Amino acid sequence: MSKLATGSLELANRAAELDAEDPLAPYGALFVESEGLVAYLDGNSLGRPLRRTAEEVRRFIDEDWGGRLIRGWDERWLDEPFVLGDRLGAACLGAGPGQTVIADSTTVNLYKLIRAAVELAGGLESSRTEIIADTDNFPTDRYLVEGIAAERGLTIRWIKADPSSGVTPTQAAEAITERTAVVVLSHVAYRSGYLADGPAITELAHRAGALIVWDLCHSAGSVPVALDEWGVDFAAGCTYKYLNGGPGSPAFAYVAERHHEAFRQPVQGWLGRREAFEMASGYGPADGIRRFVSGTPPIFGMLPLRDMLSLVEETGIAAIREKSVKLTEFAIDAHRTLLEPLGVTLASPAEAERRGGHVTLEHPAFRALTQRLWDGGVIPDFRAPQGLRLGLSPLSTSFGEALRGMETVREELSRVI
Amino acid sequence: MSKLATGSLELANRAAELDAEDPLAPYGALFVESEGLVAYLDGNSLGRPLRRTAEEVRRFIDEDWGGRLIRGWDERWLDEPFVLGDRLGAACLGAGPGQTVIADSTTVNLYKLIRAAVELAGGLESSRTEIIADTDNFPTDRYLVEGIAAERGLTIRWIKADPSSGVTPTQAAEAITERTAVVVLSHVAYRSGYLADGPAITELAHRAGALIVWDLCHSAGSVPVALDEWGVDFAAGCTYKYLNGGPGSPAFAYVAERHHEAFRQPVQGWLGRREAFEMASGYGPADGIRRFVSGTPPIFGMLPLRDMLSLVEETGIAAIREKSVKLTEFAIDAHRTLLEPLGVTLASPAEAERRGGHVTLEHPAFRALTQRLWDGGVIPDFRAPQGLRLGLSPLSTSFGEALRGMETVREELSRVI
Repeated sequence: MSKLATGSLELANRAAELDAEDPLAPYGALFVESEGLVAYLDGNSLGRPLRRTAEEVRRFIDEDWGGRLIRGWDERWLDEPFVLGDRLGAACLGAGPGQTVIADSTTVNLYKLIRAAVELAGGLESSRTEIIADTDNFPTDRYLVEGIAAERGLTIRWIKADPSSGVTPTQAAEAITERTAVVVLSHVAYRSGYLADGPAITELAHRAGALIVWDLCHSAGSVPVALDEWGVDFAAGCTYKYLNGGPGSPAFAYVAERHHEAFRQPVQGWLGRREAFEMASGYGPADGIRRFVSGTPPIFGMLPLRDMLSLVEETGIAAIREKSVKLTEFAIDAHRTLLEPLGVTLASPAEAERRGGHVTLEHPAFRALTQRLWDGGVIPDFRAPQGLRLGLSPLSTSFGEALRGMETVREELSRVI
Repeated sequence: MSKLATGSLELANRAAELDAEDPLAPYGALFVESEGLVAYLDGNSLGRPLRRTAEEVRRFIDEDWGGRLIRGWDERWLDEPFVLGDRLGAACLGAGPGQTVIADSTTVNLYKLIRAAVELAGGLESSRTEIIADTDNFPTDRYLVEGIAAERGLTIRWIKADPSSGVTPTQAAEAITERTAVVVLSHVAYRSGYLADGPAITELAHRAGALIVWDLCHSAGSVPVALDEWGVDFAAGCTYKYLNGGPGSPAFAYVAERHHEAFRQPVQGWLGRREAFEMASGYGPADGIRRFVSGTPPIFGMLPLRDMLSLVEETGIAAIREKSVKLTEFAIDAHRTLLEPLGVTLASPAEAERRGGHVTLEHPAFRALTQRLWDGGVIPDFRAPQGLRLGLSPLSTSFGEALRGMETVREELSRVI
């Protein structure tokens, strides 16, 4: 038996052990089965649907939308973005009530938050003319910052992030100065999975008198966040990754309570106005987090999220994180045994405390390989130029599944190199 | 037999006749039944769900989202906003392909369109410092214009619209000057149902060198619109009224092809960038209508719209408008017989060619009456200060239903006056 095969057998035994002792293992059966699927390794791009959601949607259509019709708005839906926001805040974000809302897309929410943050910071001290961003942040964050800086006459100070890691407190400390208005960073880097030091960088921003906007897309539902405790100003993120809200499900936004009164957002819509249903002349923001809202909330689009949130509340984010760490540790071990010998490199932090819920591996052949893997039912994500990203969603992914996928990556890669 | 009773009998006979000869009558059975419902007269606030949608959602969850998982984006979803946009454009808006997209909310879309329009107009001629709006437009339109004018240093010239009618070409001609950058109006007024003269006002704006943004919320799926033929620049509207997309379903936006190249929107997100999946540095807009997109498209939220659009394509917007006119004519006749004697006044245009798909009646007691009507299963909408708005959605509403509702309004009103 070759060395590689011996390693594979050990990995298989370990995966079986880990699955046997995994308290979250039974949750896997709650998700819709997928024909021909060998391994789903992209739960951080699009979480899987829950079996119960189709029935919940039918109930909603028959009883709520079809049954209550327009009355549904008064009876429940007008509050739903805040009710779900509070639940999400409590379950995943460390956010007390009245600060989180489900609305729009991550991009739109970040636009509104960064615009408001720039004005709040500039309002205090007009010498604050810089936005801090990093070169490896998700495109939306970078493009938004570019657009907002251009339209508000600000400059961007780019932190050059190592694509295999992320923005460190040392880098942040060097970049943030008395000229900084707003710092915009991702808590978990979308490529490397680097987990930024949320409390330390938030404190650095505040010590310099700046405000911070955290993008939580790859954290929410995977890595515990403590927005209130860290003293974060603003945050946003999506719900279709670890929160399984479905393709393009509405995003969330967090505005710390201390900023509510001065918070002004640029997209002044009818439902963010005080006494909205008087439809009177002249915009004036509603109280509290309600002023973040612009248009009519996407109630139908929130339905799958509601089901997943119940699951997260049931298991608790700590248990999810615990399994997540074990999954990524196992994936890195499997990489060392199966893929490193073929020239694959690890592009994610090796230390669990600096790593989110996904692991990225790099090899020049991965771009060509991805479609073959997909065709064969092994579904990781590809991130240019050569990253294979393994998103291991704790509630739906088993250790055995992760190993099956990585064994297939090894087989396919062996064929082409 | 009293005069009123005689009138009621005649109305009942006429409703029965109209229903019997209505070619769209069979479509009513395609909608979900609502327990205890006597008459749904608010199809222009929230259209009713189709029976087939629950099953379509289940199929989507099992086969598309659950079955294809992340592969769904490449296989279909990335194009879905444009495929559905084109279908909506062809079926309802008189828009050729490649100009309409399903995205975000009406508020967000209007924000992006007005911002872009202001820059396009200002780019041509910097003396264009005014936005034209009207005092009776829907709140979102007014508040957005206020916010954008403030942030761009523009002034607003308000057309004082008569709340019982709307903006006439004469009023528009008086307001639009060589200082006008952008004109923002609703095609069908949300309160009165006044149907503005789309082609005439568009031409007035263009003759003065200005651009126009039409809000089509109360037109789409009810009144035929001919955006290409009228030479409209920009338009947006929602899909949860006559397009039955469900509470908070995504909105649509139209950008005329001739503006695509110069069109720059403020919310620069990842999917509006050229070669989005390279995720490279520096935003540059994608070609065509794709540059309107900001964040990840709300695919799950579009599902009910897809089903309703099939129905509209099947019947054709002309047949829908024909029934709509008959419904509103009938409602006005019923008003004259049943409600006018009680002091109710008509707050909608009497002429069909200047009226959209709803009719608004006014009485000081209507605010107090609305909850009682709702409790009794008769569901119109109330619009402050004293308007009862009857939204008669042609595919789901029968003449008999409209009459049942109005008879109940008469009974309830008789009790309190």
